[in-house]
Amino acid sequence: MPTSEQDFLAAIDRHFPAQAEGVLLGRGDDCAILDALGPLCVSTDLFVEGAHFRRAYFSPTDIGHKALAAAASDLAAMGAAPVACALSLVLPDDVDDAFLDTMLAGMAALSTRLGLPLAGGDLSRGPALILDLVVFGRPGPAGRLLRRGTVRPGDELVMIGEAGLARAGLCALERDGRAACERWPAATNAHLRPEPRLDDGLLLAGLPGVRALMDVSDGLARDIPRLLGLGTANAKHIHMNLGADLRIHEGLLHPEALAFFAERGEPAVEAYVLGGEDYALLAGVDPSGLSRVLAALPAARHIGTVTALPGLRVNGAAFIKVGFDHFGKD
Amino acid sequence: MPTSEQDFLAAIDRHFPAQAEGVLLGRGDDCAILDALGPLCVSTDLFVEGAHFRRAYFSPTDIGHKALAAAASDLAAMGAAPVACALSLVLPDDVDDAFLDTMLAGMAALSTRLGLPLAGGDLSRGPALILDLVVFGRPGPAGRLLRRGTVRPGDELVMIGEAGLARAGLCALERDGRAACERWPAATNAHLRPEPRLDDGLLLAGLPGVRALMDVSDGLARDIPRLLGLGTANAKHIHMNLGADLRIHEGLLHPEALAFFAERGEPAVEAYVLGGEDYALLAGVDPSGLSRVLAALPAARHIGTVTALPGLRVNGAAFIKVGFDHFGKD
Repeated sequence: MPTSEQDFLAAIDRHFPAQAEGVLLGRGDDCAILDALGPLCVSTDLFVEGAHFRRAYFSPTDIGHKALAAAASDLAAMGAAPVACALSLVLPDDVDDAFLDTMLAGMAALSTRLGLPLAGGDLSRGPALILDLVVFGRPGPAGRLLRRGTVRPGDELVMIGEAGLARAGLCALERDGRAACERWPAATNAHLRPEPRLDDGLLLAGLPGVRALMDVSDGLARDIPRLLGLGTANAKHIHMNLGADLRIHEGLLHPEALAFFAERGEPAVEAYVLGGEDYALLAGVDPSGLSRVLAALPAARHIGTVTALPGLRVNGAAFIKVGFDHFGKD
Repeated sequence: MPTSEQDFLAAIDRHFPAQAEGVLLGRGDDCAILDALGPLCVSTDLFVEGAHFRRAYFSPTDIGHKALAAAASDLAAMGAAPVACALSLVLPDDVDDAFLDTMLAGMAALSTRLGLPLAGGDLSRGPALILDLVVFGRPGPAGRLLRRGTVRPGDELVMIGEAGLARAGLCALERDGRAACERWPAATNAHLRPEPRLDDGLLLAGLPGVRALMDVSDGLARDIPRLLGLGTANAKHIHMNLGADLRIHEGLLHPEALAFFAERGEPAVEAYVLGGEDYALLAGVDPSGLSRVLAALPAARHIGTVTALPGLRVNGAAFIKVGFDHFGKD
C-alpha cells in the first residue's frame, strides 16, 4: 500500500485528468467546485469488501470498474447526464501499490468513457477495502429528471436490460471462483463488470409517456415497490395501494442464466424476479407511450402492469419471496 | 444493529427532516436533487473507526457529531454557506439500535444547527464503523469562495481558532480513556466535539484582502504548504518557491494545552505547530487587510508571514518535523 497520502494523490493524478468541463475547481483544495447551473443529481454508493465484493474473484480492475458503475447507474436511473464523481477510499494494509494502481486504472477507464471526471475524495486506512463513490449529474437535453413514485394504475412496466444474469454470475463465482468466468462468461461479466445504462436513461427522459424510472439493483421483487413509491419519504402521500402484475416467461432470460438455473433446479422465472445487481432500468410508462419506448430501446421488454390492487403477482399468482439486501440478514 | 435497511431508513426519518430548502428531491429516490443555481462546493470526509476514532472513548453522540463537524469544516474552509449533506454508513454487527439511534441524534443536532439537511446516502454492513460524509455548500452573500494556493510573498498568516488543544485531548484520551474528560474538559471536547467555523468562513469571504483560506486538520506544519499551494494539481503553475516564517509564542496556546504539554515535557510551541484536528481556519491575508481581519474575528491571531524563501521557519529556526497523517506511517 502507498506509504503516504502524497504517494496516493500522485497515483490519482496519473490516472485521472486534473481538469474537466463542469468542474470549476478540481482536486487539491478543501472542496471541489462544480459548475451547477440548475438542479444537480447526487448519489452515493458504498462498495464494501465482504458485503459487495470479494478479492478472491474480483480483479483489481473489476473492483475499480464496478464501484463506479454501480454508482453511475443511479444517474442512469434519473435519466441524468453525467457531471463528475468523487471517491472516498478506505485501504487495508494488504493492498499493495500495484493492486491500487490497477484498481484506479479500471475506474479511470470507465470514468473517461462515461464522462464522469474525478473531482475529489478522501483516503483513510481501515480494516477492509471500501470504496464510497459519489456521483453528480444534471438534466439532459430533454430538461427532465425521472423519479420514482410517480406511476399510476394501468401504467406499463418496462425492463431495459437483463434480470437474473448477474445473480447467476455471482452464484457461479461464489462456488467456483474466478474459474467460473470460462464457463459462464456473460453471467460472470454481468456481476464483475456491469455497464450503467446512462444513454438509455437519457433517451427515456426524452420520450413522452415515461413517467417513472429506477435502476434494479436489489432484484425486481424488492425494487418494484420502490418504483411504486411505497414506504418512501418522498412519496408518502400518493397511491399507497398500488401493486403490480408481472408477466414473466423464460424467453426474457439470457441463455446463460437459463442454463445456469436449470442446472441448479431453480425456476428461471423466480430467478428473473429475485435476481439482483443487474443494474437494468425499470420504467413506468403510460400505455400511450409503450410502443415508442419499445421501438426506441432494443433492450426494452414489456414485463407487466401497475395495478390498483396492492401486492406483487407473477403470472397470476401472488409472489411473496423477496430479493436480496446488502444489509439485511435474509 | 437494525435488522433491515427499512428499519435503518425509519431511524433516519425520525432524526432528519424529509424536506429542506435547497433540496429539490430528498432521500428515497435513486439520487437526491440539489437546487444549485451556481457554483456548488462538494467535499467528502471519511471517519473511520481505528483510524479517526475509537468507540472506547467516543460516545455515540460524539461520533455522529464529529463525523459531520469534520466534513462541514471543509465548507468553512472555502468560506461557503451550507446547503446539504449525505451519509454513507458502514455498520459492523456489534452496533446495536440504541447506539445507532444516539449517533444519528448527535449528527442530526449538528445538522439542524449548521443548516446541513441530510439529502441522501447509503448503508452497508462491514468490519468496522465507518461514516463517509459528503457536504455541499454555495457561495455566501459576498459571492466569493476562498481557495488555497493563491497567496503571495508578504501575505500575513492568520489562525482563527486553537492549535494543539485537540492533540492534547487526543493524547489524554488515548492514555486515560473517557476519564480524561474530567481533568481536561476543553482539550477532550476539542477532540471529541470540534465546532466547524462556518460563520467565520463566511465572514472572511466578505472581507477585503483575504486571499486564501483552508482548515487546519493535519496540523500547521503539514497544512501550511497546502495553503501555499505547493504540490497540488490546482496550483502547480504558481509560486513553487513560497515558504513561511511563523512567530509562535506560548500565549497562543489554550491554558489546558499549555498545562498538558508542560506536564509531558513537550515544548508548547512545537505542539502548536504539529497539533492536528483542531479544525481552526488558516487565512492568507494581504497586509493591507490584516487589521480588519483581526478586528472582525475575536479568535483571529496573526501567526506569521508568507515568504519567497522556501521552507517553514518557526521563531527564526528551520522547522523540519511534520504533523500527523491519518494515512501515513509516520
